[in-house]
Amino acid sequence: MIESSNHRPLIFVSNDDGFYAGGIRALIEVVEKYGDVIAVAPESAESGMSHAITIKRPLRLKHVYSKPGVTMYKCNGTPVDCVKLGLNQVVPRKPDIMVSGINHGSNASISVIYSGTMGAAIEACLNGIPSIGFSLLDHSSEANFEPSKHYVEKIFVQILEKRLPEYICLNVNIPNVPLEQIRGIRVCRQTHGVWKEEFEKRIDPHGGEYYWLTGNFKNFEIGNPETDEWALENNYVAVVPIHADFTSYQALKGLQYLQTDHATQKI
Amino acid sequence: MIESSNHRPLIFVSNDDGFYAGGIRALIEVVEKYGDVIAVAPESAESGMSHAITIKRPLRLKHVYSKPGVTMYKCNGTPVDCVKLGLNQVVPRKPDIMVSGINHGSNASISVIYSGTMGAAIEACLNGIPSIGFSLLDHSSEANFEPSKHYVEKIFVQILEKRLPEYICLNVNIPNVPLEQIRGIRVCRQTHGVWKEEFEKRIDPHGGEYYWLTGNFKNFEIGNPETDEWALENNYVAVVPIHADFTSYQALKGLQYLQTDHATQKI
Repeated sequence: MIESSNHRPLIFVSNDDGFYAGGIRALIEVVEKYGDVIAVAPESAESGMSHAITIKRPLRLKHVYSKPGVTMYKCNGTPVDCVKLGLNQVVPRKPDIMVSGINHGSNASISVIYSGTMGAAIEACLNGIPSIGFSLLDHSSEANFEPSKHYVEKIFVQILEKRLPEYICLNVNIPNVPLEQIRGIRVCRQTHGVWKEEFEKRIDPHGGEYYWLTGNFKNFEIGNPETDEWALENNYVAVVPIHADFTSYQALKGLQYLQTDHATQKI
Repeated sequence: MIESSNHRPLIFVSNDDGFYAGGIRALIEVVEKYGDVIAVAPESAESGMSHAITIKRPLRLKHVYSKPGVTMYKCNGTPVDCVKLGLNQVVPRKPDIMVSGINHGSNASISVIYSGTMGAAIEACLNGIPSIGFSLLDHSSEANFEPSKHYVEKIFVQILEKRLPEYICLNVNIPNVPLEQIRGIRVCRQTHGVWKEEFEKRIDPHGGEYYWLTGNFKNFEIGNPETDEWALENNYVAVVPIHADFTSYQALKGLQYLQTDHATQKI
């Protein structure tokens, strides 16, 4: 067991599939060996909630269970609400590490921006906590997380020991194949891609139209071995270091023409 | 009026404060002079919804009004849902430009990640449309958008003409001061900062605890003239070019130690 100088590590856990999901159970099974776990997870499934916060209605926090070394709470908010409320109202001190997931389904490429699992991890990261979001490429609520636990543990243990650069967190996606088919771990970048929406239009019994959001992922750089999608297609675990600075530094210079300053020029 | 080769520009509009908000009315007043406007906006306020999408319930789309050159729809989803549904089901062709806002309140610094206004702009950008999110630094539903319209128009017209680099959009924040006090436009980067949460805990009439999310913004680089917060504090309009690539390229190299490959080494 890895110990900090004078305490057992405090491990904060959240997810977006809800406190009862198989993925968070598997994640806690992996990390509880290494420290004290406090989990605050949504009371219902909050997939696709991105970095949303709840400001129009109040939040409720309920204790779900405690066992030696693990305490679970549920919250009626988004994944980011869970992290905010957990860090502000529940933890006795700043956690040593935060893990989110294991998500039921991929958060590779542009899916990172829609992901509640990654929203939670990024929120902890913004608060200066080394954070990792884990996702398994199986959307099923019955997904089998056993093979993925090997790599979750391998990555978790290294980050618990070595930490992460400040304000950087990890987006880890794991192929849905038997353990012996996984070829290793690739540190890579986010694939450039987009979800192309196809809405399914239906008519309700009262004649009203409604739409279900569906969609297909379009990879703009198929075959590029620098990308997380390539890693996953080739049965590697994909690890992307991410941050919350949206600035395109490349674009800054080309947009200088927009600048005006009344001290030196007219509007 | 700026014309493309063979058509009047098609301008797509959305926001997160809802179709009835003063900010979107002001935005349409500015842009309708330059092309045909199609707006799809949330039917109720969706602040803080970030890049959230709705997958658990169906979406409804309702026509609100049409007048020459402007058609408004409302949708019962998030700002990103509005953009997805609008681009997929409403527009006759790919819009020439997309504008979001004018938001009631700042989306500078890390607020960009929580913002539904910017979620909408980024979603259009992911679909290859030059997009701009505008925000006025006044949270009030009664905010006066008149002074900001001058700068919204100034920036809009330039981007309509010159477009933007592909998959780059703009996060534009406007100081809440009289027009003559605005010193110009600064092209700058996202300030490094964080919202420090302070939850207000209350007891309901039945003895249950609940929490309201509040919070204070903490600027980690006060006084840095490269940042959007500095620009705003100094009465400049802040323009930050942003993208949806979360990869920290700086961090990639330092994390190579996590890599494994069964072809060349053991797990």
